[in-house]
Amino acid sequence: MTPVAASPLTLKLSAFVALSEAELAVLARLHGRRRTFAAGRDMGHQGQPDQAAYILSSGWVCSYKIQPDGTRQIVDFQVPGDFLGLRSVLLRTSDHSFEPIGDIQAAEVLTSDLLEAFVQTPRLAMAILWAASRDEAMVVEHLVGIGRRDADARMAHFLLELGSRLALVGIGSKEGYDCPLTQYHLADALGLSAVHINRVLRQLRESGLVTFRDGRVTFDNYSGLVDFAEFDPAYLDQTGPLLK
Amino acid sequence: MTPVAASPLTLKLSAFVALSEAELAVLARLHGRRRTFAAGRDMGHQGQPDQAAYILSSGWVCSYKIQPDGTRQIVDFQVPGDFLGLRSVLLRTSDHSFEPIGDIQAAEVLTSDLLEAFVQTPRLAMAILWAASRDEAMVVEHLVGIGRRDADARMAHFLLELGSRLALVGIGSKEGYDCPLTQYHLADALGLSAVHINRVLRQLRESGLVTFRDGRVTFDNYSGLVDFAEFDPAYLDQTGPLLK
Repeated sequence: MTPVAASPLTLKLSAFVALSEAELAVLARLHGRRRTFAAGRDMGHQGQPDQAAYILSSGWVCSYKIQPDGTRQIVDFQVPGDFLGLRSVLLRTSDHSFEPIGDIQAAEVLTSDLLEAFVQTPRLAMAILWAASRDEAMVVEHLVGIGRRDADARMAHFLLELGSRLALVGIGSKEGYDCPLTQYHLADALGLSAVHINRVLRQLRESGLVTFRDGRVTFDNYSGLVDFAEFDPAYLDQTGPLLK
Repeated sequence: MTPVAASPLTLKLSAFVALSEAELAVLARLHGRRRTFAAGRDMGHQGQPDQAAYILSSGWVCSYKIQPDGTRQIVDFQVPGDFLGLRSVLLRTSDHSFEPIGDIQAAEVLTSDLLEAFVQTPRLAMAILWAASRDEAMVVEHLVGIGRRDADARMAHFLLELGSRLALVGIGSKEGYDCPLTQYHLADALGLSAVHINRVLRQLRESGLVTFRDGRVTFDNYSGLVDFAEFDPAYLDQTGPLLK
């Protein structure tokens, strides 16, 4: 078995499809062109044509849109096992920008690589469609969250969702996880001011639910936080493979 | 050539991939189990397991989430050529509900049907992944719109996006399109009150930009509306096939 058998993408797709040796080998070849990107480097920007897509294997990435008025709306964060810019490749013109938070490792993937992989194993196509559906389900949750959840519940939901995503790829648990995000990331993702972010985090900490401090999220009361945020992780679909 | 060669889904996917006779035949078989659903009938609801997916061939559908407080957030509308509930099938538990607006026709599709189609033509897998990416790009646009656009620009953007989507499947143009949505649909989709919707529509009409009346959207000044909404349709990727 190659080391790629345990890559974050493999761990993630295994939640949807039980992967055979042959399918693992195809996934391994998709990781062939590995690259390193430094923190803050622009990997792809809004409006750019002919952009490459990547599979993130370590580190975090921030995806955002710049508004006509210059403000930044963070659409999502990518964690290991996520695709970067897959939508940009398929839609030809990138509808968003993305940049690494800290140094990252990622493998470059072209449309032709994906097509070749799908020819070899159509089940992988289903698995990647599943991953894309899951990404869409998350954006829908955020859409609903901004429309309807108050600031405290929005933050609680956000920290729980990240925890579930990280647990799936083996770098988080119901105890907590390492998190490189700053208050500015949180503000631009949740549509709140940085001052408001600090107040919300203090409130959640003083309620004994969750502590975010020194690059670490600690769930002080996981089930209490789930109740508070009305967090139902069904949309993340992590209960084991559908396709055996 | 079968009549399905001109199905809305075929028209839509042709924007991404030039379809061969064999691929058209596979798409035709996906339309095998046709069904009719009456207006207002619940086709699938939030939290439902083992739901079917559908390819919509005529009529409009509304997808929404019910919040814990009982309010409804409309996530999107589906028009001919769109999948219904594909995300629900792949993620096993539906993260949203959907119901027809007026009577509709749709073909039922199971995960096994999709997998079989992907085995026969991997290019179709790429095309459906493209369609899913495009759906996600739309949700992202809505997310950004609710966060940052004012009510008039949000409405203008919404009517332009629908027009582009309908033009792709041959039932809309820069002149306008038939639209069965009520002010209540618009209110729940755009996060505004029904009273506010009427005011916004009157303003856009009096500015000579667009008129929505008696089930018809008429673009009185298409390019003026595009400027007003800062509408850049690149995220809808309708400029012709990437895969020849």
